[in-house]
Amino acid sequence: MGKIKQKNRPKTPKHEVFSSAGTAKYIGKTIEGESSITIVDYNVEGVLITQNPAIEEIKGVLDAKMNHWIDIEGIHNKENIEKVSKIFGLHPLMMEDILNTTQKAKLDHYEKNNQLFLVLKIPFRNLETSEIETEHVSIVLDEDFAISFQELDHHNIFKPILLRMDRENSKTKRSKLDYLFYSFIDIAVDNYFVVLNETEEKLEELSEQILSNAQSAHQNQLFYIKREINALKKALFPLKEIINQLIRDENSLIHTETKVYLKDVLDHVIENLEAIETFKDEIENLLVNYHSQLSNRMNSVMKTLTVFTAIFMPLTFIVGIYGMNFEQMPELKEPNGYFYTLIGMFVLAVGLWVYFRWKKYI
Amino acid sequence: MGKIKQKNRPKTPKHEVFSSAGTAKYIGKTIEGESSITIVDYNVEGVLITQNPAIEEIKGVLDAKMNHWIDIEGIHNKENIEKVSKIFGLHPLMMEDILNTTQKAKLDHYEKNNQLFLVLKIPFRNLETSEIETEHVSIVLDEDFAISFQELDHHNIFKPILLRMDRENSKTKRSKLDYLFYSFIDIAVDNYFVVLNETEEKLEELSEQILSNAQSAHQNQLFYIKREINALKKALFPLKEIINQLIRDENSLIHTETKVYLKDVLDHVIENLEAIETFKDEIENLLVNYHSQLSNRMNSVMKTLTVFTAIFMPLTFIVGIYGMNFEQMPELKEPNGYFYTLIGMFVLAVGLWVYFRWKKYI
Amino acid sequence: MGKIKQKNRPKTPKHEVFSSAGTAKYIGKTIEGESSITIVDYNVEGVLITQNPAIEEIKGVLDAKMNHWIDIEGIHNKENIEKVSKIFGLHPLMMEDILNTTQKAKLDHYEKNNQLFLVLKIPFRNLETSEIETEHVSIVLDEDFAISFQELDHHNIFKPILLRMDRENSKTKRSKLDYLFYSFIDIAVDNYFVVLNETEEKLEELSEQILSNAQSAHQNQLFYIKREINALKKALFPLKEIINQLIRDENSLIHTETKVYLKDVLDHVIENLEAIETFKDEIENLLVNYHSQLSNRMNSVMKTLTVFTAIFMPLTFIVGIYGMNFEQMPELKEPNGYFYTLIGMFVLAVGLWVYFRWKKYI
Amino acid sequence: MGKIKQKNRPKTPKHEVFSSAGTAKYIGKTIEGESSITIVDYNVEGVLITQNPAIEEIKGVLDAKMNHWIDIEGIHNKENIEKVSKIFGLHPLMMEDILNTTQKAKLDHYEKNNQLFLVLKIPFRNLETSEIETEHVSIVLDEDFAISFQELDHHNIFKPILLRMDRENSKTKRSKLDYLFYSFIDIAVDNYFVVLNETEEKLEELSEQILSNAQSAHQNQLFYIKREINALKKALFPLKEIINQLIRDENSLIHTETKVYLKDVLDHVIENLEAIETFKDEIENLLVNYHSQLSNRMNSVMKTLTVFTAIFMPLTFIVGIYGMNFEQMPELKEPNGYFYTLIGMFVLAVGLWVYFRWKKYI
Amino acid sequence: MGKIKQKNRPKTPKHEVFSSAGTAKYIGKTIEGESSITIVDYNVEGVLITQNPAIEEIKGVLDAKMNHWIDIEGIHNKENIEKVSKIFGLHPLMMEDILNTTQKAKLDHYEKNNQLFLVLKIPFRNLETSEIETEHVSIVLDEDFAISFQELDHHNIFKPILLRMDRENSKTKRSKLDYLFYSFIDIAVDNYFVVLNETEEKLEELSEQILSNAQSAHQNQLFYIKREINALKKALFPLKEIINQLIRDENSLIHTETKVYLKDVLDHVIENLEAIETFKDEIENLLVNYHSQLSNRMNSVMKTLTVFTAIFMPLTFIVGIYGMNFEQMPELKEPNGYFYTLIGMFVLAVGLWVYFRWKKYI
Repeated sequence: MGKIKQKNRPKTPKHEVFSSAGTAKYIGKTIEGESSITIVDYNVEGVLITQNPAIEEIKGVLDAKMNHWIDIEGIHNKENIEKVSKIFGLHPLMMEDILNTTQKAKLDHYEKNNQLFLVLKIPFRNLETSEIETEHVSIVLDEDFAISFQELDHHNIFKPILLRMDRENSKTKRSKLDYLFYSFIDIAVDNYFVVLNETEEKLEELSEQILSNAQSAHQNQLFYIKREINALKKALFPLKEIINQLIRDENSLIHTETKVYLKDVLDHVIENLEAIETFKDEIENLLVNYHSQLSNRMNSVMKTLTVFTAIFMPLTFIVGIYGMNFEQMPELKEPNGYFYTLIGMFVLAVGLWVYFRWKKYI
Repeated sequence: MGKIKQKNRPKTPKHEVFSSAGTAKYIGKTIEGESSITIVDYNVEGVLITQNPAIEEIKGVLDAKMNHWIDIEGIHNKENIEKVSKIFGLHPLMMEDILNTTQKAKLDHYEKNNQLFLVLKIPFRNLETSEIETEHVSIVLDEDFAISFQELDHHNIFKPILLRMDRENSKTKRSKLDYLFYSFIDIAVDNYFVVLNETEEKLEELSEQILSNAQSAHQNQLFYIKREINALKKALFPLKEIINQLIRDENSLIHTETKVYLKDVLDHVIENLEAIETFKDEIENLLVNYHSQLSNRMNSVMKTLTVFTAIFMPLTFIVGIYGMNFEQMPELKEPNGYFYTLIGMFVLAVGLWVYFRWKKYI
Repeated sequence: MGKIKQKNRPKTPKHEVFSSAGTAKYIGKTIEGESSITIVDYNVEGVLITQNPAIEEIKGVLDAKMNHWIDIEGIHNKENIEKVSKIFGLHPLMMEDILNTTQKAKLDHYEKNNQLFLVLKIPFRNLETSEIETEHVSIVLDEDFAISFQELDHHNIFKPILLRMDRENSKTKRSKLDYLFYSFIDIAVDNYFVVLNETEEKLEELSEQILSNAQSAHQNQLFYIKREINALKKALFPLKEIINQLIRDENSLIHTETKVYLKDVLDHVIENLEAIETFKDEIENLLVNYHSQLSNRMNSVMKTLTVFTAIFMPLTFIVGIYGMNFEQMPELKEPNGYFYTLIGMFVLAVGLWVYFRWKKYI
Repeated sequence: MGKIKQKNRPKTPKHEVFSSAGTAKYIGKTIEGESSITIVDYNVEGVLITQNPAIEEIKGVLDAKMNHWIDIEGIHNKENIEKVSKIFGLHPLMMEDILNTTQKAKLDHYEKNNQLFLVLKIPFRNLETSEIETEHVSIVLDEDFAISFQELDHHNIFKPILLRMDRENSKTKRSKLDYLFYSFIDIAVDNYFVVLNETEEKLEELSEQILSNAQSAHQNQLFYIKREINALKKALFPLKEIINQLIRDENSLIHTETKVYLKDVLDHVIENLEAIETFKDEIENLLVNYHSQLSNRMNSVMKTLTVFTAIFMPLTFIVGIYGMNFEQMPELKEPNGYFYTLIGMFVLAVGLWVYFRWKKYI
Repeated sequence: MGKIKQKNRPKTPKHEVFSSAGTAKYIGKTIEGESSITIVDYNVEGVLITQNPAIEEIKGVLDAKMNHWIDIEGIHNKENIEKVSKIFGLHPLMMEDILNTTQKAKLDHYEKNNQLFLVLKIPFRNLETSEIETEHVSIVLDEDFAISFQELDHHNIFKPILLRMDRENSKTKRSKLDYLFYSFIDIAVDNYFVVLNETEEKLEELSEQILSNAQSAHQNQLFYIKREINALKKALFPLKEIINQLIRDENSLIHTETKVYLKDVLDHVIENLEAIETFKDEIENLLVNYHSQLSNRMNSVMKTLTVFTAIFMPLTFIVGIYGMNFEQMPELKEPNGYFYTLIGMFVLAVGLWVYFRWKKYI
């Protein structure tokens, strides 16, 4: 489970160094619980769901006249993944990427057996830590079947697809596997919308607080949101090129009818990336505003200091004069000397006050 | 109605997540009032206008020998839009974009039925809020007809086109539908000129105020204008590529004669984009100037503080000396001691004054 | 007349919005005086100049065996321009660009009648305001003639070409119209050299002043020069692509022999653009230096304040002590107490002075 | 041995100027000890290792039916390198690059004798200085043999390859020389992972320290890490293009089966480069945070100064008043005057305290 | 002689404006002394050197079986250059570039007579001013001869080539003129290495000084080095594209065997450009460090001020209290009042000291 960490620094991908390529190993948090397998056979007439068949008998379950979608939730059980992998003839390098949850989104075309291999990073907010994390999902598309590997076993990301299939006249049911493949990508992009909407709300709230009264805590919060957004951008960005490639390439697996839908989801990806850029601009502006407020306050502190000093220094000097012990100081004998002095100092103070008002120090 | 918001943060596009593609839904402010349909049939000989025909009978209204322009104002009535859409054979994905007012400008070519689909964002200043908003306009160009969907029903953006048609020897009347299509884009770009001219005036006024006497309120105003300009840029920018594509592509819908006009409107788009860049540079310069003035004032406050402190501290020290209560202080008995001390302090103060003048502190 | 304004903000191009394309209108300052027409017929054998012929008879004046250059100075008389335009078969969109003095440099090839249309912006310094302005010049190159439209009637930019033609064995006379066309561009680029040399001198002078003693007025002057340079860059930049295009394109109007000269003038454009970049770098460096000096002075002010405060505060405290009125203060009775105190304070002051010297505060 | 220096500035590559090209000379630290030669003959059936054969007899040692890998550790003995070079027909320009340890990573294809020549920079942390250094490694790939030149004789970088060969069913043993060639690159990239992981840990630790309490020493440490990362980026970056080229080019030396592995290692390079970008962003953020903390502290110092000054100045003024020596000062005779004055000053001090609290100065 | 000026601003290229193209004129410092011509005829068998032949008889001197290299040192004698130019059939535009010492590096291919024309800028440090200057060198390569024009007559840049030719078995002697042509470029690039190594040493020294104790003079020195480096970059940068072009283009003048050497020199150019980038980064870092130190010092000054103020203000207030002249002040009569007060103030001062220590002000 790739964490888009909020309070820690980003990690170098924990790559298994010095092992030869194609050496698959589960890299991720250890998760308890079973991995489950769901087989969804569907065509325009109906949907047939088989839960957790014996892995060895999977092939037997598949109905030749239907489209086959094998959905595997939970990838920590490496043996099961390997068995499935062998049954469906997947390349060893695929295995490595399916299990390595630090792998970023990518699309490979294995020409030998004409399979498309897609890695998706699906973001969600961990409700306990309120941090954004990404789930690692891998998809294999073959002429005859599609396999989806979901990292977590307790959080079925592709449930909406099953719900849509339930509907009469569902476009998914009426289409080939490439439309299902498109649906996976669509779901992934929709999850970015969800997460970005939350981020936007947080940013909006923070923006109001900063504009009304910037605190030093706000700066840290801006940094955290910035990090979150950068991580989302890095996770989402490769998808743009991946979808472009699917649209551009002549490939028997993706039919022309589906490409118009891929263009649609590409638009959504670009929309999300532009929203991210807008957020980054906004954060920059808020940071500038924050520093501007700080500097204004500093200015105001300096003015306070200057006004106090500049008014009281001369006054203190005057009272110092009449505190001198010279024997001959005619003013001291003046009966109203004290009174006149007080008046004079009052006039001086008011004068300085007016002067500083005029200079906009107060 | 996409708002280019001035006082709030930009929103993530409110996309209807987790619904399957092609699921059209009106996304925008709820607006009361009817949507109206205007059919403009025209050719070199004349113009025939039909107001609000029964939707089902639209096809019957069209005169085979003329060019057909169907203009729909108000898109909140989804049923009507869908009926029109079916009559003219529009693709379901078009529907989604016609109704989604957060969709940015784009051009799609639906090859199957050879239709060009164009989304335009037309900016205008909301007179109540004095904020810039954009109206969402969609255009469908077919060999046989052009349909324009305007977001608002009380604000006919394309009125100038009708006025031009009224003129004898109007180029529009003499041309095919592709010239009408060009005219839509031309009108859109003209609206950017209008809005940018207003922005320029605001910026000019603000610039004068800042250069003469920068206030902290000015910085916020600069931020608002910057945001406004960024939003305009984002709305306008895709148009450049769209027009380029229309000029470049060999397409039976756009004739060569019209391309010279598209080049002309492309020049206008680039002019507007360059004006936007100039405004951004100007804003940057004004921000630098603003901070420079702040820092100059801070400097001046510091100098005031230093001068007051440095002049009065020594004087206060001197009067302190003669306030000491030592029994043996010969000066105190001196008959003119007080007078000499005052003179001395005066000389010292003047000396320090001259010194600070020379150091340019005053 | 496009002004490269120094003290005002740049304007959005004053485009005539909502009029249909090809609607020509003179946009620029109103200028009194007649526009004059000069016809220069030339070939290797000689030059024939006709001043202000009746417009209707222009065609008759042209000698079939010579190259024809029609030079029009002053474009505010729209009727005359339109007559000329019709006589030589110019496209209506050309007219719009000839009269619109806010149009930036551009090159169009009208394929129908095989004419090249070039807009040039020629900079000059207005001697009254000492601001840089640009003159709007349009050139039409046809197989049979070249027409130049100069914005101003009292300032013949292309006079050097006539002077060169006067010389025996002039390359211009020996060549076709495309060499004349190259000469127009060459003259334009030479004017940028002139203006940039002046700018450089101003910058050099300013640089010396800033490096010796930066004043806040200098910053504004840097901003003005920056604006001037940016405007020059915007005016010059399109010329690079224009000349590149002339060199690259296979076009019967531009012969291969002339391309080596176009490459030469392209080198000059690039030289000017690089000089502009150098000036911008220099301005940035000077701004950094300016702020650095400000901050050094602030630092020095702070040190002065600190030294005065830190020396006189302890002294004032000491004299305060002996100003207390306790009945039992043994020092006060000491006959040399006053003297010792003065000595002690002197030593303390010197000690603090030395300390601050050592800390480099003084 | 190219040092990625931490405490000194980067050096201009120490190139032997003014000597003609192809003049090979060992450029690097002088290293004592012998260079050793290991010949590894392998095929699917087994591995045959010959240690330090007489150079002249190398050719005789090679078994025709096996793949030949000649590994040379230690390149300071120029004569040996030259002998090997002649035996295997290497181009003189190769020699120059093999010996010049300042040469960055590059790939050359010598078409004449169809040899690929690859220079790799392999980073490692010098345990004594804890600085990152790079080892200079050169690889020659021919149809019949592969030669690897390692800079150091006491640090066999390619040992993991030998270990993998030991395993039954090793992919390396089953493959041609191009897989060995890929393995060299893979090992190199793995070393970047190792070094970057260490850097990440250092950065993480530093980040925690800075966020909790920034010290000026931290800034220098950030600069050192930045320099280290920049050096790593410069060393790694060319590898991306090199691998791309290997994948793209049709070359009889690299077979299609191996390209999928090269794609895999390319992914790892990109992963590392992205990690480097992330670290750079993080460093930028930490620097901003550092300066922000500094400025906050400055602010807090200023507030302390202002509060002390603004509270004690008025108080000192008041006690100054009653220290004046006027004969007529009624308050002085008041029996509770002293007490009331103390009360008054206390109230004033508390009032000012409350005021500054409210203004958030304290 | 193009000066890379250190203490003055860069100049706009002094171009001879308003003269027609191909008008050659010597632009540069006036230099006394004769220009000398050296003819080097060479082939694999030997080298034949003729010093200063009569220009008119040059052609006669050339031995048909050898390669001809005509080296001209000193270009201020325009007549001589023109005579040579006519004898060897050079294009008039070449003449302009040979004499214009402000021309930057460029490569032209004159297709008509199949000549390559190369301008090189060779940097060297003027020992008197310790500024970097560049010498303007032009090379013409023909099938039958190569001509080199060196700007200065007292400083033979290409001497190393002659020295190499002296050696037995010299690669130059064994090769065609294109290898000589490559050697010119190689020498030019080697001079950049020399100059950059000096710059690096200066930068290294400066870096140490700044890191230990930044002075305001250092900032200016950084600016000067930055300017120097920028000038070097501008002079060197075009060479990259020039060499790339020589490698890429199919041209009968450059043979395939020579291209591998051009690739080698291209590597050196890139190495130098990367070193320049590294220096620029380093300068940026040092500037940041410089400002950081300034701001740290400012901070420290402020803290000193605050500590002095905050400790002595309360003390001065206390002694002020006991300086009041109230008749009823019980403490004043206390026999140990003075002593207790001193103790109290000492305790207070120590308390404040400890407090500020704890707040890290001291």
